[in-house]
Amino acid sequence: MAATRAELEAHGYPALSMERVAEIAGVAKSTVYRRWRDPVGLLAELLHDLSMAEVPLPDTGSIELDLHGLALGIYRFYTHPAWRPIMLGLIAAGVHDPRAAQALHDFFQARNDLAAELVRHAIKRGDLPTDTDPVEVIRTLGAPFYYRMLVTHEPIDETVAEQAAAAAVAAAKAGTCSTR
Amino acid sequence: MAATRAELEAHGYPALSMERVAEIAGVAKSTVYRRWRDPVGLLAELLHDLSMAEVPLPDTGSIELDLHGLALGIYRFYTHPAWRPIMLGLIAAGVHDPRAAQALHDFFQARNDLAAELVRHAIKRGDLPTDTDPVEVIRTLGAPFYYRMLVTHEPIDETVAEQAAAAAVAAAKAGTCSTR
Repeated sequence: MAATRAELEAHGYPALSMERVAEIAGVAKSTVYRRWRDPVGLLAELLHDLSMAEVPLPDTGSIELDLHGLALGIYRFYTHPAWRPIMLGLIAAGVHDPRAAQALHDFFQARNDLAAELVRHAIKRGDLPTDTDPVEVIRTLGAPFYYRMLVTHEPIDETVAEQAAAAAVAAAKAGTCSTR
Repeated sequence: MAATRAELEAHGYPALSMERVAEIAGVAKSTVYRRWRDPVGLLAELLHDLSMAEVPLPDTGSIELDLHGLALGIYRFYTHPAWRPIMLGLIAAGVHDPRAAQALHDFFQARNDLAAELVRHAIKRGDLPTDTDPVEVIRTLGAPFYYRMLVTHEPIDETVAEQAAAAAVAAAKAGTCSTR
């Protein structure tokens, strides 16, 4: 996994080579092929390892503070010089490569479901409408970062994190994140 | 521009060839090179032509209805079999290619500023706080579509458009889209 991460940082997802990963890790090519089959296998495990490790979940008892903390975690993740190109490279690959798309889908499904725990707590406390879809609140929180990084190529900063959190709270409180 | 569009639909942005565009358009290669210089030049003009053409701006007198109409326009644009791969291909290219990124930046800056006119009208009517950043409301509206298409690989549908519009209105009314 460390070798995979080093290769992704250096050359991006499209150029990820099983041979180079084996070489850097100092193991036989056949070992890498047997355990991970192909670059998407490496990627899926890396994303899986990553799913909880890099963005700790706050639990302050306030949905405003919890979502703000989560938003700052996303912001910091994407200002990290290694993770930003890895994740954006994977997202770019996902447009043309269905297996990269599937890995992203599975990663974000797991990650967003975990993060949604904050929202479930807030619903239980009576701070959000009972018919709130917890994952939809997390999507609303995350979307502005990707929009700026991928679509409009505008910078992200702590103010973006603050606005993303406040907008997600406002939408959830207004009932626009309700289950369908 | 029609030849460029045909090439993009068939082969995507990374493979866009000046020679093929000249061939399809039935003009000399030198003409294409002189006027547009390179694929990014073709792309920039195509995006410029597109900026108003494909998503008409509603003007109903209600910010809820206007944003819902705009969101349905975005949804329809991205369910169009030609535009979706063109735009997503350009966005994927923008991750690695600074000139594609610049073309996207300029396109969305122009497009979002035009769409923000709806929000300026609503502020004038007193329907939104006076310190609302009109473009931030438009970003909030658009972000969920790209998040689903590019990041989580979840489907977009009319309910997504409805939720995106309602969330943007709720955020704007709560004052979370204020100028910094």
